[in-house]
Amino acid sequence: MSEPANHAAPPVRGAFPVFRPIATRWIDNDHYGHVNNVAYYSYFDTAVNGWLIEATGVDIRALPAIGLVVETGCRYFRPLSFPDALEVGLAVERLGTSSITYRLGIFRRGEPDAAAAGRFVHVYVEAASRRPVPVPEVIRCAVERLTVA
Amino acid sequence: MSEPANHAAPPVRGAFPVFRPIATRWIDNDHYGHVNNVAYYSYFDTAVNGWLIEATGVDIRALPAIGLVVETGCRYFRPLSFPDALEVGLAVERLGTSSITYRLGIFRRGEPDAAAAGRFVHVYVEAASRRPVPVPEVIRCAVERLTVA
Amino acid sequence: MSEPANHAAPPVRGAFPVFRPIATRWIDNDHYGHVNNVAYYSYFDTAVNGWLIEATGVDIRALPAIGLVVETGCRYFRPLSFPDALEVGLAVERLGTSSITYRLGIFRRGEPDAAAAGRFVHVYVEAASRRPVPVPEVIRCAVERLTVA
Amino acid sequence: MSEPANHAAPPVRGAFPVFRPIATRWIDNDHYGHVNNVAYYSYFDTAVNGWLIEATGVDIRALPAIGLVVETGCRYFRPLSFPDALEVGLAVERLGTSSITYRLGIFRRGEPDAAAAGRFVHVYVEAASRRPVPVPEVIRCAVERLTVA
Repeated sequence: MSEPANHAAPPVRGAFPVFRPIATRWIDNDHYGHVNNVAYYSYFDTAVNGWLIEATGVDIRALPAIGLVVETGCRYFRPLSFPDALEVGLAVERLGTSSITYRLGIFRRGEPDAAAAGRFVHVYVEAASRRPVPVPEVIRCAVERLTVA
Repeated sequence: MSEPANHAAPPVRGAFPVFRPIATRWIDNDHYGHVNNVAYYSYFDTAVNGWLIEATGVDIRALPAIGLVVETGCRYFRPLSFPDALEVGLAVERLGTSSITYRLGIFRRGEPDAAAAGRFVHVYVEAASRRPVPVPEVIRCAVERLTVA
Repeated sequence: MSEPANHAAPPVRGAFPVFRPIATRWIDNDHYGHVNNVAYYSYFDTAVNGWLIEATGVDIRALPAIGLVVETGCRYFRPLSFPDALEVGLAVERLGTSSITYRLGIFRRGEPDAAAAGRFVHVYVEAASRRPVPVPEVIRCAVERLTVA
Repeated sequence: MSEPANHAAPPVRGAFPVFRPIATRWIDNDHYGHVNNVAYYSYFDTAVNGWLIEATGVDIRALPAIGLVVETGCRYFRPLSFPDALEVGLAVERLGTSSITYRLGIFRRGEPDAAAAGRFVHVYVEAASRRPVPVPEVIRCAVERLTVA
């Protein structure tokens, strides 16, 4: 039986230059007793934006250009459940003129293989007009550290 | 400037055999005043599971085989904001032995083009062992109606 | 055994001059298969703010004074579960100089008794300074219709 | 101007025998750029249930008696915003035969006064019949440590 989604192996820790802790919440669990597929995306944008705020030292929400999310995705390899403690691995797959494509891995604390693998794409736009603009310099500098060969 | 995410045109209504209404919630809006990228995924699994429950006439959560979500994805074409009224278009892209791949479109009520396009993959597993099993017959029958040429 | 919380009877439909439909979402269900206690509060502010937007005909978020939530509460009488269709009853218990206290009832569609009873208090503040100001006239007018004897 | 909600002073740290860390998430912020009133309740049940699981050493969800939430409430004293790091103070106000009433305080890390004060009532019921039963002994023992004079 060849399933379309899990053909790829889960990423390992070495694939991510930076990790951010995330704590599950009681409400993340769904009817089946596991973290719902939706909650993973709240881990992704918390990890990306939290890291950007820390790494740049500025409140990115007040910059003249803000990152709009234009694409996200997730593959789920093994279930999670509250009260699991998690770590989100962050890497940059592509740093374009006005967009940044992040790769993410959700790891249960202490485990070598990711429980889930994500994709998250920001396009920078002028806050008022919502027209694409170059990635702000302060963000580009920070994000270059996440670029992997 | 060629952005990686929005190269494809948003899907239109004709691409979906079934539509489900979804109402936005105040809490769906984020810091920037638009529906957060995470909330779209709550629309997806509400639409898929709500439709399955209605179309099969059974509580799918009590079947011996349940659908685990193994992959999801979303491309965002234009912003949404509470109190927008939405419609979720549903189609089946691939009906496998033990998996179903859905395509979804989020439309603002009355608009011809989708504001977002989604992907949602269920793999059916035995509830207790979590081992893959064939898609339950009652679900296969219902879902065949969503298959598009 | 006298429990502290449910001594009061659930409110009935006659206690509310206005009703708003709310659809449950798959993600609202928690580990025990019922709508989580947190989700009710997303019904409350969706009902209050959605009604205010419709009844005033203005986007209340763009007014010079905005409603900050200073107190909320809920008593839970009977469980709810996706895909229940709900109706939220709205009434105003107290219309003060700068605050509005709402009473809310969550009803499963077609049922006479509320499944939950809520309380929701807005204090109006100047958007920039966050200092209390009188309830905006357009909101006061609308809300007077929700006052019950 | 006497507002109904904030007449009481916010609780201080000394009122709580136990503290639990909670990290805000990007999605917790709402249209106005602050943590939405709903999100506080996800902090409450995460803190209560997380503490119960740790303090008892058992998965409380698998006990023959489970805690149903029958009442919750919150007063909001000052705004919070992602990426604030928070601490939730926990105390037991009343330990009844079959119910436990918790008092909670949400503190921004390092601040002496609570940003919000909560109330959270569990009634223990037999998992299958949902009929009230005495608080399980393992939980009663743990919770006695949270009782304040």
